[in-house]
Amino acid sequence: MKTVLLLMMFSVSFSLFADEEWRTPKPEDMVYLELESGTVVIELAPFMAPEHVKQFKNLVREGFYDGLDFYRVIDGFVAQAGDFSEKKASKHKSSLNAELDRNMVMASDFNVVQSPEFIAPETGYIQSFAAGRDLKSKKEWLLHCYGAVAMARDNDINSGTTDFYIAIGQAPRHLDRNMSTFGRVISGMQHVQAVKRGNKDKGGVIDEVSARSKILSAKVASDLIAEKRLEIQVQKDTSQAFNKRLQSARKLENEFFHFKGNGNLDVCYYQTKVQLNN
Amino acid sequence: MKTVLLLMMFSVSFSLFADEEWRTPKPEDMVYLELESGTVVIELAPFMAPEHVKQFKNLVREGFYDGLDFYRVIDGFVAQAGDFSEKKASKHKSSLNAELDRNMVMASDFNVVQSPEFIAPETGYIQSFAAGRDLKSKKEWLLHCYGAVAMARDNDINSGTTDFYIAIGQAPRHLDRNMSTFGRVISGMQHVQAVKRGNKDKGGVIDEVSARSKILSAKVASDLIAEKRLEIQVQKDTSQAFNKRLQSARKLENEFFHFKGNGNLDVCYYQTKVQLNN
Repeated sequence: MKTVLLLMMFSVSFSLFADEEWRTPKPEDMVYLELESGTVVIELAPFMAPEHVKQFKNLVREGFYDGLDFYRVIDGFVAQAGDFSEKKASKHKSSLNAELDRNMVMASDFNVVQSPEFIAPETGYIQSFAAGRDLKSKKEWLLHCYGAVAMARDNDINSGTTDFYIAIGQAPRHLDRNMSTFGRVISGMQHVQAVKRGNKDKGGVIDEVSARSKILSAKVASDLIAEKRLEIQVQKDTSQAFNKRLQSARKLENEFFHFKGNGNLDVCYYQTKVQLNN
Repeated sequence: MKTVLLLMMFSVSFSLFADEEWRTPKPEDMVYLELESGTVVIELAPFMAPEHVKQFKNLVREGFYDGLDFYRVIDGFVAQAGDFSEKKASKHKSSLNAELDRNMVMASDFNVVQSPEFIAPETGYIQSFAAGRDLKSKKEWLLHCYGAVAMARDNDINSGTTDFYIAIGQAPRHLDRNMSTFGRVISGMQHVQAVKRGNKDKGGVIDEVSARSKILSAKVASDLIAEKRLEIQVQKDTSQAFNKRLQSARKLENEFFHFKGNGNLDVCYYQTKVQLNN
């Protein structure tokens, strides 16, 4: 009774495919957020939002986020962090032009899973990030799945500066192509889930600074000495193991499943795995 | 910059509609789980899974869950609780016949939102629970949205007894019509999110009993004296306020939205609100 329900999430990864199944994110594309409950690892997506990634890394390296907090947190929606006072000085606070999507490239690395999909014309993965695509407009973008990291902004689409949020519940897909998504949490979502929630009637804002969960520090992984870096690997969406899992999920082959579904897959549910070796 | 992103989640509920907007769940249909971090309120769904509700309430009243724990917890998927040892005695451990769906009733209270939908033929709400429907087979069922509560089981579809799980991430919709969903968390999901995670490589099981998050106690609300009961109200999915929100969400009318979407709604994202007055 205890073993079966979760089986489909953890199919064994055969060592035969090990070479092609995993990739190691570049240390310069990872940010470690040290929260009170543990380390959160964000993989950045410079292929989709290069200017947001650049500014975010500059802010991290400046120490901008160190000591700041999660000031707006709504269970099931987002945890938003940064400088609620808007007073903290920085050399890297310029308003960013939105990076909502990118033009399809000739040799696209978009791995189609659903066509058509419910919210986007097509969904799939780009470099293990859940993504959407529109063949008509020839655009590709990242989805607001669980763990997505995007820049907060005002009504002006080009008003993001420093504050960011992490999606912590059911994917808010209406934010796809509306917000500049520049990364995703690849490890430590349980620590994001541990941050204190705000009052929904106040839009999730936590007024008391002392009641907010802190960002102790933020670091770009490549700035750390080797011993302080995590050994982390991301499953490739193009790997045989991952595609086998998708195939099995389409048919719900396991005898555990009585109802076999309609073959459609929600790419926000089937995210690629991550291995942490230390 | 701080105010806009979350606006759409918290449209003001006009007092004009107050009478018809909210319903108070029956105390006999609510279970309070006292966890280490706070109170979780489950609303039961006897209209969908009467025998599961009956057995669950019997177990709660017997004190079966008191002192037991969340022994299998996978971030982004489920938190499963009960008796991992399978040794705790109970008068209410009989195997339950699956209650995966119900026959459509003549005067159905199914409020259609999406037809067709991506995973189910139609989705909408029944008594504020996100639900699916199939007009061909004339069946209706509850969806595995964030906060759904269902009975764990073995491969045998009729093998659920005592242990249950709560969905804590992106809706695992492949479990719809495969598991007997008998309730949903209407308050305190942040406390469920605070439970300790297991190791994914071990299917989420936490071997060390001392490392598991405990259920301090479980009570049926109607068994508590009035002062110990929570004043809790659930927004009706048939209310003007909720339907206005859905309508607005379909068009993404707010000027915050640059990209207006395709009009489709994920009912697992747009759940009805809950008010807690004490």
